[in-house]
Amino acid sequence: MVRTEQVQVQTHGNGHVVDITDQVAAAVARSGLTAGAVTVFNVGSTAGLTTTEYEPGLANHDLQAAFERIAPEDGHYEHESTWQDDNGHSHVRASLLGPSLSVPFVEGRLTLGTWQQIILVDFDTRGRTRTVVCQIIGE
Amino acid sequence: MVRTEQVQVQTHGNGHVVDITDQVAAAVARSGLTAGAVTVFNVGSTAGLTTTEYEPGLANHDLQAAFERIAPEDGHYEHESTWQDDNGHSHVRASLLGPSLSVPFVEGRLTLGTWQQIILVDFDTRGRTRTVVCQIIGE
Amino acid sequence: MVRTEQVQVQTHGNGHVVDITDQVAAAVARSGLTAGAVTVFNVGSTAGLTTTEYEPGLANHDLQAAFERIAPEDGHYEHESTWQDDNGHSHVRASLLGPSLSVPFVEGRLTLGTWQQIILVDFDTRGRTRTVVCQIIGE
Repeated sequence: MVRTEQVQVQTHGNGHVVDITDQVAAAVARSGLTAGAVTVFNVGSTAGLTTTEYEPGLANHDLQAAFERIAPEDGHYEHESTWQDDNGHSHVRASLLGPSLSVPFVEGRLTLGTWQQIILVDFDTRGRTRTVVCQIIGE
Repeated sequence: MVRTEQVQVQTHGNGHVVDITDQVAAAVARSGLTAGAVTVFNVGSTAGLTTTEYEPGLANHDLQAAFERIAPEDGHYEHESTWQDDNGHSHVRASLLGPSLSVPFVEGRLTLGTWQQIILVDFDTRGRTRTVVCQIIGE
Repeated sequence: MVRTEQVQVQTHGNGHVVDITDQVAAAVARSGLTAGAVTVFNVGSTAGLTTTEYEPGLANHDLQAAFERIAPEDGHYEHESTWQDDNGHSHVRASLLGPSLSVPFVEGRLTLGTWQQIILVDFDTRGRTRTVVCQIIGE
Protein backbone atom coordinates (compact mmCIF):
# COMPACT_ATOMS: atom_id res chain seq x y z
CA MET A 1 0.00 0.00 0.00
CA VAL A 2 1.31 3.40 -1.02
CA ARG A 3 0.06 6.73 0.30
CA THR A 4 1.47 10.07 -0.86
CA GLU A 5 1.07 13.47 0.74
CA GLN A 6 2.58 16.83 0.02
CA VAL A 7 3.44 19.01 2.99
CA GLN A 8 4.01 22.76 2.61
CA VAL A 9 6.74 24.32 4.76
CA GLN A 10 7.19 28.08 5.16
CA THR A 11 10.82 29.15 5.67
CA HIS A 12 12.90 32.31 6.11
CA GLY A 13 15.79 30.91 4.00
CA ASN A 14 19.46 31.53 4.92
CA GLY A 15 19.89 28.24 6.77
CA HIS A 16 16.51 28.34 8.52
CA VAL A 17 15.97 25.02 10.31
CA VAL A 18 12.32 23.93 10.50
CA ASP A 19 11.17 20.99 12.64
CA ILE A 20 8.77 19.04 10.40
CA THR A 21 8.40 15.99 12.67
CA ASP A 22 4.75 16.67 13.52
CA GLN A 23 3.81 17.13 9.88
CA VAL A 24 5.49 13.85 8.88
CA ALA A 25 3.95 12.00 11.83
CA ALA A 26 0.50 13.36 10.92
CA ALA A 27 0.89 12.15 7.33
CA VAL A 28 1.79 8.68 8.61
CA ALA A 29 -1.21 8.71 10.97
CA ARG A 30 -3.59 9.75 8.18
CA SER A 31 -2.33 6.90 5.98
CA GLY A 32 -3.90 4.36 8.33
CA LEU A 33 -0.87 2.10 7.82
CA THR A 34 0.72 0.61 10.94
CA ALA A 35 4.11 -0.67 9.79
CA GLY A 36 6.37 0.59 7.02
CA ALA A 37 8.67 3.44 6.07
CA VAL A 38 8.05 7.03 5.10
CA THR A 39 10.28 8.53 2.43
CA VAL A 40 10.56 12.25 3.10
CA PHE A 41 11.77 14.16 0.03
CA ASN A 42 12.45 17.86 -0.45
CA VAL A 43 11.41 19.12 -3.89
CA GLY A 44 14.04 21.61 -5.07
CA SER A 45 17.81 21.95 -5.01
CA THR A 46 18.54 24.57 -2.31
CA ALA A 47 17.17 22.81 0.79
CA GLY A 48 17.87 19.48 2.45
CA LEU A 49 16.66 17.10 5.14
CA THR A 50 18.18 15.35 8.14
CA THR A 51 17.51 14.71 11.83
CA THR A 52 18.85 16.56 14.87
CA GLU A 53 18.01 17.42 18.46
CA TYR A 54 15.91 20.45 17.64
CA GLU A 55 16.99 23.23 20.00
CA PRO A 56 18.12 26.81 19.27
CA GLY A 57 21.85 26.29 19.92
CA LEU A 58 22.23 23.54 17.33
CA ALA A 59 19.66 24.94 14.89
CA ASN A 60 20.72 28.58 14.84
CA HIS A 61 24.45 28.40 15.49
CA ASP A 62 26.24 25.04 15.50
CA LEU A 63 24.82 23.56 12.29
CA GLN A 64 25.21 26.93 10.55
CA ALA A 65 28.91 27.08 11.49
CA ALA A 66 29.53 23.65 9.96
CA PHE A 67 27.76 24.56 6.71
CA GLU A 68 29.83 27.74 6.57
CA ARG A 69 33.01 25.61 6.79
CA ILE A 70 31.83 23.34 3.97
CA ALA A 71 30.60 26.09 1.63
CA PRO A 72 31.34 29.65 2.85
CA GLU A 73 28.70 32.19 1.91
CA ASP A 74 31.28 34.70 0.64
CA GLY A 75 33.28 32.13 -1.39
CA HIS A 76 33.55 32.17 -5.17
CA TYR A 77 30.87 30.15 -6.95
CA GLU A 78 30.84 29.58 -10.70
CA HIS A 79 27.09 29.00 -10.39
CA GLU A 80 26.71 32.68 -9.56
CA SER A 81 28.92 33.85 -12.44
CA THR A 82 26.82 31.83 -14.87
CA TRP A 83 23.40 32.83 -13.60
CA GLN A 84 24.04 36.24 -11.96
CA ASP A 85 22.71 34.52 -8.86
CA ASP A 86 23.69 34.75 -5.19
CA ASN A 87 22.95 31.24 -3.99
CA GLY A 88 25.91 29.09 -5.04
CA HIS A 89 26.60 28.19 -1.42
CA SER A 90 22.91 27.24 -0.99
CA HIS A 91 23.11 24.67 -3.77
CA VAL A 92 26.36 23.15 -2.52
CA ARG A 93 25.11 22.84 1.07
CA ALA A 94 21.82 21.28 -0.07
CA SER A 95 23.57 18.70 -2.26
CA LEU A 96 25.85 17.67 0.61
CA LEU A 97 23.04 17.39 3.14
CA GLY A 98 20.86 15.48 0.69
CA PRO A 99 17.18 15.75 -0.28
CA SER A 100 15.77 12.52 1.13
CA LEU A 101 15.34 10.65 4.38
CA SER A 102 13.70 7.29 5.07
CA VAL A 103 12.17 6.79 8.49
CA PRO A 104 10.57 3.50 9.57
CA PHE A 105 7.34 3.43 11.59
CA VAL A 106 6.01 0.65 13.79
CA GLU A 107 2.49 0.51 15.28
CA GLY A 108 1.87 3.80 13.51
CA ARG A 109 4.75 5.63 15.23
CA LEU A 110 7.99 6.92 13.75
CA THR A 111 11.03 5.13 15.25
CA LEU A 112 12.75 8.41 16.20
CA GLY A 113 14.72 8.87 19.40
CA THR A 114 13.30 11.09 22.15
CA TRP A 115 15.63 13.96 21.22
CA GLN A 116 15.64 13.35 17.47
CA GLN A 117 13.53 15.51 15.19
CA ILE A 118 13.16 15.56 11.40
CA ILE A 119 14.33 18.92 10.08
CA LEU A 120 14.27 20.77 6.80
CA VAL A 121 17.16 23.21 6.32
CA ASP A 122 16.47 25.91 3.75
CA PHE A 123 19.77 27.23 2.42
CA ASP A 124 18.32 29.62 -0.15
CA THR A 125 18.95 33.34 0.24
CA ARG A 126 15.29 34.26 0.67
CA GLY A 127 12.20 32.81 2.30
CA ARG A 128 10.47 30.05 0.37
CA THR A 129 7.38 27.87 0.54
CA ARG A 130 8.84 24.38 0.35
CA THR A 131 7.05 21.26 -0.84
CA VAL A 132 8.04 18.12 1.02
CA VAL A 133 6.72 14.80 -0.30
CA CYS A 134 5.86 12.20 2.35
CA GLN A 135 5.54 8.84 0.66
CA ILE A 136 4.33 6.12 2.98
CA ILE A 137 4.79 2.48 2.00
CA GLY A 138 3.65 -0.25 4.35
CA GLU A 139 0.79 -2.41 5.53
CA MET B 1 5.28 -7.37 3.16
CA VAL B 2 6.97 -5.45 5.95
CA ARG B 3 9.36 -6.92 8.51
CA THR B 4 10.93 -4.86 11.28
CA GLU B 5 13.90 -5.76 13.46
CA GLN B 6 15.84 -3.81 16.02
CA VAL B 7 19.57 -4.43 16.16
CA GLN B 8 21.63 -3.45 19.22
CA VAL B 9 25.13 -2.08 18.55
CA GLN B 10 27.71 -1.60 21.30
CA THR B 11 30.08 1.34 20.69
CA HIS B 12 32.99 3.15 22.35
CA GLY B 13 31.75 6.59 21.16
CA ASN B 14 34.17 9.32 19.99
CA GLY B 15 33.81 8.49 16.31
CA HIS B 16 33.86 4.71 16.75
CA VAL B 17 33.08 3.08 13.40
CA VAL B 18 31.21 -0.24 13.67
CA ASP B 19 30.68 -2.53 10.69
CA ILE B 20 27.02 -3.61 10.95
CA THR B 21 26.79 -5.31 7.54
CA ASP B 22 26.43 -8.83 8.96
CA GLN B 23 23.64 -7.76 11.32
CA VAL B 24 21.70 -6.06 8.53
CA ALA B 25 22.22 -9.02 6.19
CA ALA B 26 21.03 -11.41 8.91
CA ALA B 27 17.87 -9.35 9.43
CA VAL B 28 17.17 -9.51 5.69
CA ALA B 29 17.77 -13.28 5.67
CA ARG B 30 15.43 -13.82 8.64
CA SER B 31 12.67 -11.85 6.87
CA GLY B 32 12.35 -14.59 4.27
CA LEU B 33 11.84 -11.91 1.60
CA THR B 34 13.86 -12.23 -1.59
CA ALA B 35 13.59 -8.83 -3.30
CA GLY B 36 13.14 -5.40 -1.79
CA ALA B 37 14.95 -2.73 0.19
CA VAL B 38 16.05 -2.48 3.79
CA THR B 39 15.80 0.91 5.47
CA VAL B 40 18.51 1.10 8.11
CA PHE B 41 17.81 3.85 10.66
CA ASN B 42 19.82 4.97 13.67
CA VAL B 43 17.64 5.92 16.64
CA GLY B 44 19.20 8.97 18.31
CA SER B 45 20.87 12.20 17.26
CA THR B 46 24.59 11.65 17.91
CA ALA B 47 25.33 8.77 15.53
CA GLY B 48 24.93 8.27 11.79
CA LEU B 49 25.08 5.67 9.03
CA THR B 50 26.85 5.32 5.69
CA THR B 51 28.92 2.82 3.71
CA THR B 52 32.68 2.57 3.39
CA GLU B 53 35.47 0.11 2.72
CA TYR B 54 35.81 -1.04 6.31
CA GLU B 55 39.52 -1.10 7.11
CA PRO B 56 41.46 0.51 10.00
CA GLY B 57 43.05 3.35 7.99
CA LEU B 58 39.74 4.78 6.79
CA ALA B 59 37.77 3.92 9.94
CA ASN B 60 40.21 5.12 12.59
CA HIS B 61 42.00 7.99 10.85
CA ASP B 62 40.78 9.25 7.48
CA LEU B 63 37.05 9.56 8.22
CA GLN B 64 37.85 11.05 11.65
CA ALA B 65 40.02 13.75 10.07
CA ALA B 66 37.20 14.79 7.74
CA PHE B 67 34.67 14.98 10.59
CA GLU B 68 37.16 17.08 12.55
CA ARG B 69 37.30 19.53 9.60
CA ILE B 70 33.50 19.77 9.43
CA ALA B 71 32.90 20.12 13.20
CA PRO B 72 36.10 20.42 15.29
CA GLU B 73 35.87 18.81 18.72
CA ASP B 74 37.33 21.89 20.46
CA GLY B 75 35.16 24.42 18.60
CA HIS B 76 32.52 26.60 20.26
CA TYR B 77 29.06 25.05 20.35
CA GLU B 78 25.99 26.87 21.61
CA HIS B 79 24.45 23.46 22.29
CA GLU B 80 27.02 22.98 25.06
CA SER B 81 26.42 26.42 26.57
CA THR B 82 22.71 25.70 26.76
CA TRP B 83 22.90 22.20 28.19
CA GLN B 84 26.28 22.18 30.00
CA ASP B 85 27.05 19.34 27.63
CA ASP B 86 30.24 18.33 25.80
CA ASN B 87 28.83 16.81 22.62
CA GLY B 88 27.96 19.72 20.32
CA HIS B 89 30.36 18.41 17.68
CA SER B 90 28.74 14.95 17.99
CA HIS B 91 25.32 16.34 17.09
CA VAL B 92 26.60 18.36 14.15
CA ARG B 93 28.57 15.45 12.68
CA ALA B 94 25.60 13.08 13.07
CA SER B 95 23.21 15.50 11.35
CA LEU B 96 25.57 15.91 8.40
CA LEU B 97 26.20 12.19 7.99
CA GLY B 98 22.49 11.41 8.30
CA PRO B 99 20.54 8.77 10.23
CA SER B 100 19.19 6.59 7.43
CA LEU B 101 20.35 4.43 4.57
CA SER B 102 18.32 2.41 2.06
CA VAL B 103 19.95 -0.69 0.62
CA PRO B 104 18.26 -2.87 -2.02
CA PHE B 105 18.47 -6.65 -1.88
CA VAL B 106 17.99 -9.13 -4.71
CA GLU B 107 17.67 -12.92 -4.30
CA GLY B 108 18.00 -12.29 -0.56
CA ARG B 109 21.39 -10.57 -0.87
CA LEU B 110 22.27 -6.92 -0.25
CA THR B 111 23.51 -5.22 -3.45
CA LEU B 112 26.72 -3.97 -1.80
CA GLY B 113 30.05 -3.85 -3.57
CA THR B 114 32.78 -6.29 -2.53
CA TRP B 115 34.63 -3.61 -0.55
CA GLN B 116 31.55 -1.75 0.65
CA GLN B 117 30.31 -2.24 4.20
CA ILE B 118 27.42 -0.62 6.12
CA ILE B 119 28.82 1.31 9.06
CA LEU B 120 27.45 3.08 12.11
CA VAL B 121 29.59 5.99 13.33
CA ASP B 122 28.98 6.91 16.96
CA PHE B 123 30.03 10.52 17.50
CA ASP B 124 28.95 10.77 21.14
CA THR B 125 31.60 11.40 23.79
CA ARG B 126 31.03 8.12 25.61
CA GLY B 127 30.21 4.51 24.75
CA ARG B 128 26.59 3.81 23.96
CA THR B 129 24.31 0.90 23.17
CA ARG B 130 22.74 1.97 19.90
CA THR B 131 19.42 0.80 18.51
CA VAL B 132 19.36 0.46 14.73
CA VAL B 133 16.02 -0.27 13.08
CA CYS B 134 16.14 -2.56 10.04
CA GLN B 135 12.87 -2.23 8.17
CA ILE B 136 12.57 -4.66 5.31
CA ILE B 137 9.95 -4.06 2.62
CA GLY B 138 9.68 -6.44 -0.30
CA GLU B 139 8.22 -9.65 -1.61
CA MET C 1 5.38 -5.00 -6.14
CA VAL C 2 9.16 -4.81 -6.45
CA ARG C 3 11.09 -4.18 -9.65
CA THR C 4 14.88 -4.07 -9.78
CA GLU C 5 17.09 -2.71 -12.53
CA GLN C 6 20.81 -2.18 -12.80
CA VAL C 7 21.97 0.91 -14.65
CA GLN C 8 25.55 1.21 -15.96
CA VAL C 9 27.16 4.65 -15.74
CA GLN C 10 30.42 5.52 -17.50
CA THR C 11 32.55 8.08 -15.63
CA HIS C 12 35.90 9.87 -15.92
CA GLY C 13 36.51 9.69 -12.13
CA ASN C 14 38.13 12.58 -10.18
CA GLY C 15 34.83 14.07 -9.05
CA HIS C 16 33.03 13.59 -12.38
CA VAL C 17 29.36 14.49 -11.91
CA VAL C 18 26.97 12.49 -14.11
CA ASP C 19 23.28 13.36 -14.44
CA ILE C 20 21.46 10.01 -14.16
CA THR C 21 17.92 11.40 -13.91
CA ASP C 22 16.83 10.09 -17.33
CA GLN C 23 18.11 6.60 -16.57
CA VAL C 24 16.29 6.47 -13.22
CA ALA C 25 13.10 7.87 -14.77
CA ALA C 26 13.26 5.28 -17.55
CA ALA C 27 13.61 2.46 -15.01
CA VAL C 28 10.54 3.76 -13.18
CA ALA C 29 8.61 3.98 -16.47
CA ARG C 30 9.57 0.42 -17.46
CA SER C 31 8.35 -0.90 -14.09
CA GLY C 32 4.77 -0.06 -15.03
CA LEU C 33 4.16 1.07 -11.43
CA THR C 34 2.40 4.41 -10.96
CA ALA C 35 3.00 5.30 -7.28
CA GLY C 36 5.90 4.43 -5.01
CA ALA C 37 9.53 5.17 -4.34
CA VAL C 38 12.72 4.30 -6.17
CA THR C 39 15.77 3.50 -4.08
CA VAL C 40 18.83 4.50 -6.07
CA PHE C 41 22.00 2.84 -4.75
CA ASN C 42 25.60 3.12 -5.91
CA VAL C 43 27.47 -0.18 -5.75
CA GLY C 44 31.01 0.52 -4.53
CA SER C 45 32.72 2.76 -1.97
CA THR C 46 34.30 5.59 -4.01
CA ALA C 47 31.21 7.20 -5.55
CA GLY C 48 28.04 8.71 -4.09
CA LEU C 49 24.61 10.03 -5.02
CA THR C 50 22.64 13.22 -4.40
CA THR C 51 20.56 15.80 -6.26
CA THR C 52 21.62 19.19 -7.61
CA GLU C 53 20.77 21.72 -10.29
CA TYR C 54 22.88 20.10 -12.98
CA GLU C 55 24.84 22.87 -14.68
CA PRO C 56 28.60 23.19 -15.34
CA GLY C 57 29.34 25.80 -12.65
CA LEU C 58 28.04 23.68 -9.79
CA ALA C 59 29.10 20.33 -11.25
CA ASN C 60 32.64 21.19 -12.31
CA HIS C 61 33.68 23.83 -9.81
CA ASP C 62 31.48 24.59 -6.80
CA LEU C 63 30.78 21.04 -5.60
CA GLN C 64 34.43 20.09 -6.23
CA ALA C 65 35.64 22.98 -4.04
CA ALA C 66 33.45 21.80 -1.14
CA PHE C 67 34.67 18.21 -1.41
CA GLU C 68 38.25 19.52 -1.45
CA ARG C 69 37.55 21.33 1.85
CA ILE C 70 36.12 18.17 3.43
CA ALA C 71 38.83 15.78 2.20
CA PRO C 72 41.74 17.46 0.39
CA GLU C 73 43.24 15.40 -2.41
CA ASP C 74 46.80 16.01 -1.22
CA GLY C 75 46.06 15.30 2.48
CA HIS C 76 47.52 12.36 4.40
CA TYR C 77 45.38 9.22 4.28
CA GLU C 78 46.17 6.09 6.26
CA HIS C 79 44.15 4.16 3.67
CA GLU C 80 46.88 4.93 1.15
CA SER C 81 49.73 3.92 3.48
CA THR C 82 48.03 0.58 4.09
CA TRP C 83 47.14 -0.25 0.51
CA GLN C 84 49.72 1.72 -1.53
CA ASP C 85 46.68 3.36 -3.04
CA ASP C 86 45.99 6.96 -4.12
CA ASN C 87 42.28 7.23 -3.42
CA GLY C 88 41.91 7.88 0.32
CA HIS C 89 40.16 11.17 -0.37
CA SER C 90 37.80 9.37 -2.78
CA HIS C 91 36.65 6.99 -0.06
CA VAL C 92 36.13 9.74 2.51
CA ARG C 93 34.15 11.94 0.11
CA ALA C 94 31.95 9.02 -0.98
CA SER C 95 31.16 8.02 2.61
CA LEU C 96 30.15 11.58 3.49
CA LEU C 97 27.97 12.04 0.42
CA GLY C 98 26.36 8.63 0.92
CA PRO C 99 25.51 5.77 -1.45
CA SER C 100 21.73 5.87 -1.50
CA LEU C 101 18.84 8.13 -2.35
CA SER C 102 15.09 7.51 -2.16
CA VAL C 103 12.91 9.39 -4.60
CA PRO C 104 9.10 9.12 -4.59
CA PHE C 105 7.11 8.93 -7.84
CA VAL C 106 3.47 9.76 -8.42
CA GLU C 107 1.48 8.97 -11.60
CA GLY C 108 4.70 7.42 -12.89
CA ARG C 109 6.75 10.62 -12.52
CA LEU C 110 9.61 11.35 -10.10
CA THR C 111 8.71 14.16 -7.68
CA LEU C 112 11.84 16.18 -8.54
CA GLY C 113 11.89 19.96 -8.78
CA THR C 114 12.30 21.58 -12.20
CA TRP C 115 15.97 22.36 -11.53
CA GLN C 116 16.74 19.26 -9.50
CA GLN C 117 18.58 16.36 -11.09
CA ILE C 118 19.79 13.04 -9.65
CA ILE C 119 23.58 12.89 -9.91
CA LEU C 120 26.29 10.31 -9.38
CA VAL C 121 29.63 11.76 -8.29
CA ASP C 122 32.57 9.47 -8.99
CA PHE C 123 35.42 10.36 -6.64
CA ASP C 124 37.80 7.62 -7.72
CA THR C 125 41.09 8.59 -9.33
CA ARG C 126 40.33 6.93 -12.66
CA GLY C 127 37.36 6.39 -14.94
CA ARG C 128 35.01 3.62 -13.92
CA THR C 129 31.91 1.83 -15.13
CA ARG C 130 29.53 2.23 -12.22
CA THR C 131 26.60 -0.01 -11.40
CA VAL C 132 23.63 1.84 -9.93
CA VAL C 133 20.74 -0.25 -8.61
CA CYS C 134 17.27 1.21 -9.14
CA GLN C 135 14.84 -0.62 -6.88
CA ILE C 136 11.25 0.38 -7.45
CA ILE C 137 8.64 -0.45 -4.82
CA GLY C 138 5.06 0.60 -5.33
CA GLU C 139 1.73 -0.22 -6.86
